[in-house]
Amino acid sequence: MTAETTVAHDGAQTETLVLTLPGSTYTDPTVFARETDRIFGRRWMCAVRVADVAATGRFATVEIGGESILVVRGRDQVLRAFLNACRHRGALVCTEESGAVRRNLQCPYHAWTYGLDGALVAAPNLSSLGDIDRTRYGLVPVASREWLGYLWICLADDPPSFEDSVIGAVTDRLGDAAMIDRWDVAGLALAHREIYEVAANWKLIVENFMECYHCATIHPELTEVLPEFADGLAAQYYVGHGAEFASDVDGFTVDGSAGAAALPSLDPEHDRRYYAITINPTVFVNLVPDHVIVHRMFPRAADRTSVVCDWLYAPDVVASGHDVSAGVELFHRVNQQDFDACERTQPGMSSRAYRDGGVLVPAEHHIAQFHDWVSEMTA
Amino acid sequence: MTAETTVAHDGAQTETLVLTLPGSTYTDPTVFARETDRIFGRRWMCAVRVADVAATGRFATVEIGGESILVVRGRDQVLRAFLNACRHRGALVCTEESGAVRRNLQCPYHAWTYGLDGALVAAPNLSSLGDIDRTRYGLVPVASREWLGYLWICLADDPPSFEDSVIGAVTDRLGDAAMIDRWDVAGLALAHREIYEVAANWKLIVENFMECYHCATIHPELTEVLPEFADGLAAQYYVGHGAEFASDVDGFTVDGSAGAAALPSLDPEHDRRYYAITINPTVFVNLVPDHVIVHRMFPRAADRTSVVCDWLYAPDVVASGHDVSAGVELFHRVNQQDFDACERTQPGMSSRAYRDGGVLVPAEHHIAQFHDWVSEMTA
Amino acid sequence: MTAETTVAHDGAQTETLVLTLPGSTYTDPTVFARETDRIFGRRWMCAVRVADVAATGRFATVEIGGESILVVRGRDQVLRAFLNACRHRGALVCTEESGAVRRNLQCPYHAWTYGLDGALVAAPNLSSLGDIDRTRYGLVPVASREWLGYLWICLADDPPSFEDSVIGAVTDRLGDAAMIDRWDVAGLALAHREIYEVAANWKLIVENFMECYHCATIHPELTEVLPEFADGLAAQYYVGHGAEFASDVDGFTVDGSAGAAALPSLDPEHDRRYYAITINPTVFVNLVPDHVIVHRMFPRAADRTSVVCDWLYAPDVVASGHDVSAGVELFHRVNQQDFDACERTQPGMSSRAYRDGGVLVPAEHHIAQFHDWVSEMTA
Repeated sequence: MTAETTVAHDGAQTETLVLTLPGSTYTDPTVFARETDRIFGRRWMCAVRVADVAATGRFATVEIGGESILVVRGRDQVLRAFLNACRHRGALVCTEESGAVRRNLQCPYHAWTYGLDGALVAAPNLSSLGDIDRTRYGLVPVASREWLGYLWICLADDPPSFEDSVIGAVTDRLGDAAMIDRWDVAGLALAHREIYEVAANWKLIVENFMECYHCATIHPELTEVLPEFADGLAAQYYVGHGAEFASDVDGFTVDGSAGAAALPSLDPEHDRRYYAITINPTVFVNLVPDHVIVHRMFPRAADRTSVVCDWLYAPDVVASGHDVSAGVELFHRVNQQDFDACERTQPGMSSRAYRDGGVLVPAEHHIAQFHDWVSEMTA
Repeated sequence: MTAETTVAHDGAQTETLVLTLPGSTYTDPTVFARETDRIFGRRWMCAVRVADVAATGRFATVEIGGESILVVRGRDQVLRAFLNACRHRGALVCTEESGAVRRNLQCPYHAWTYGLDGALVAAPNLSSLGDIDRTRYGLVPVASREWLGYLWICLADDPPSFEDSVIGAVTDRLGDAAMIDRWDVAGLALAHREIYEVAANWKLIVENFMECYHCATIHPELTEVLPEFADGLAAQYYVGHGAEFASDVDGFTVDGSAGAAALPSLDPEHDRRYYAITINPTVFVNLVPDHVIVHRMFPRAADRTSVVCDWLYAPDVVASGHDVSAGVELFHRVNQQDFDACERTQPGMSSRAYRDGGVLVPAEHHIAQFHDWVSEMTA
Repeated sequence: MTAETTVAHDGAQTETLVLTLPGSTYTDPTVFARETDRIFGRRWMCAVRVADVAATGRFATVEIGGESILVVRGRDQVLRAFLNACRHRGALVCTEESGAVRRNLQCPYHAWTYGLDGALVAAPNLSSLGDIDRTRYGLVPVASREWLGYLWICLADDPPSFEDSVIGAVTDRLGDAAMIDRWDVAGLALAHREIYEVAANWKLIVENFMECYHCATIHPELTEVLPEFADGLAAQYYVGHGAEFASDVDGFTVDGSAGAAALPSLDPEHDRRYYAITINPTVFVNLVPDHVIVHRMFPRAADRTSVVCDWLYAPDVVASGHDVSAGVELFHRVNQQDFDACERTQPGMSSRAYRDGGVLVPAEHHIAQFHDWVSEMTA
């Protein structure tokens, strides 16, 4: 975090501006390749919603860190992740984004056949495979961990601590390790999913999510519900702080109408508040009384990022067909507004005006921690 | 200028062939990057027609040298150019190609607000900006100069002399510094604009414009009007020379019909002549008795160039709705014929047959001066 | 050929797995550039079917080794190949894929005119070209050779022996230099042509063609006709071996129906057999009793290859309008099945699971010879 200047002032308070990362870090393909290796290829990445692969033989494929990852549920009900490449000649074992197999995973090129646990169980004309070969030529396993109803994976040989790097990020933000349990995120049901293809660097999307200095300018609906956001300080600015709903709104909805009933395990103190959490590098969690919104980013190139956004409600709300559209619509608009802003920022990253970066105002200073984290990871 | 060979001859005249630039200079992205830096990023570039940004608050954006340039007219009626990137977090301040603002330029991300003179006039939550900050965090200014009714800009910190590099090119060609004033180009009105997306290197387009050795082959309409062009010598070959109209044509039109009345300030000696001027690196000016045609090139990649072509007539001709279509159609066809030729030349640039370049015949020898200029600029 | 492992076994036979090339050789643009230079730019490449340029002045253009190659038939009936770039300023002389000229080849930019033998015969304003200039500035000739009814070209200054590198490949496979003559391939007529755009590296297509380990999995129609293919051993595995038709099929057709009459010069021993030949780097020849199928590959990028497939039958069969669709359909399906498999293999090449390559089972060991050949060529 490099202080750039102190803005002139007549009062007592000093407004320091802090430098951002230089523009090239948002545009240079070699920087993106290094981030792919050092960040997406070594950190815990939120891959797949567990409920999307609920039954034995259900699988999903997802691209992370330049790899096609195959997630499949075994006969033992364990969810496992593998590199989605046949050990024989490298063909994708599963090409669909999701689906189900009956007993085994079979490469459709030469019919090498893998158990749902990844072991090679059959290969034509290699009738006499030994146990060693079954493992040696099994699908390459990828470290995985279930949390918040998602399977998180890590491509590193020696993954960092999940407790420190993922759960720790939530604790640091909320100030309380147990607090997120009140939402029972893993127990919620998917009410809506939206996929956004954003023509911007993933770091711009993180920075955008971390600050609310832009809220007054581009989020009219959100600031109606959360008036303090109009002042420019993000909920993430203070540990444990949740932005309070406006006194005249009944729920976290696009028109202020009431949402669903608050989740049963919540304390009354969370009843009219919005909490936002960034989990580096690519996950955002938004907590409101009646639902949870989870963003998973999939960086595709220096200037292109896919974002999958899930709206999660109580299972009975979803099962009953309760109309949640006013709740979904609020953050869908926020997403569109944010991603439009990121897309109009991306071109400026290659300007000589941004060669040494831009500046963070005081309400954005916490973004410097993200910049420091990125710099440290890619050093 | 390297003499390649002397063509065998029975007569007295010796026909020397001169080498062109090597093929890779037309295809290699690293060469284009260097040209972007050294040429488009350091020379005077014709950016915007002044009349397109006539009123206070009118703006235009244009891409030059890898930068989005913002041109806006101030309250003091001065036209200014800036890098189109907010000093805060780098978003494009204006995304439209043209438009108008009422009082200020406001970044639509965090509402940093700039005066039409580029100074930072407001930033939310930075209530106490001093004068130094207003300038320090103002939009980055770009050198600019009005001439011939266009705003020319230069991205260099220390721009070359406009008189030498732009006006001097016209004087060198016409042999008379005052001659172009007879056309009062800045006083003319836009009758038609055409934008061409050409799949060819910008230098091929310059070379094509500089010579008329191709005129007999691809420009049947033009050689009808200018019979000497069928002989292969460009108007640009001799200082001060204008190609004379055929005795049986009445104007510079696609069918030889009469055009508009000659511009009032012209001498009778220019009355039936065509003059062509190349202003390095990306501007062509064509002068005929009743109108002026201005080409501005915007190189996009080693193999892609946008060309904006303006047809300018006397204001009363345009205002009266006089039919100028036969005049416009002539050079529109010439443009199409030329750009087609450039597009079929681009693929040959990567042939091993062109590894060391091709050859210039005597009627093209003046192109070597352009090649020398490019080599010198990028050395 | 590197032995990776010996698969565990209870019997006497040892099943050795052999390493393939590493994944990056199928994805890295610099590897492809080197292959373009060292392989496609130096080996004999099958360019054009001779019958497609049968008459004087008929021409065809084709892209090989990063070059546009122009093939044209002369007044002396000789077929010649040239670099398709004008010696003057580099424009493509012919832009169409095929066509005909009356007397000469004329560059449509400045009208430099070449005889059908490539010599420069006229250039405007260079009236006094001597004989030396006509050759010196003639189209750059490319080595060429007719065989099997195709023109093969070589971009090398010093081409390798055609006998060794092309004809030798056929002899090595069939075990008999004269055997292919029985099919009189050059005397056959084109019944059908199909062009496939395949999103895969050219080497994957070669490897796929070389082995039949995948036949049982993806080629149901083919294994109906050639039951031994279901066992996984390619016809190419044994010198001189042709796969025998199933006893219950009448011809090499998609439904086992009878094809056309066997070619007249065939021996009875070839009468119900299928032979497949790979000619490095980019040609496959398939021989069956009543027709011949020739694949020519045109590698476009590391992950993109065009394949032109010709079905050739006896001239009287084609002339009579005999319905050959059941014959054509069989290999068209095989092609589609193979190219689909190659396309699903291409993404796996960039997986860390394939960083050091995959493995070849015993039925694929002969592919290692191809790998060795590629490595040697690009060393």
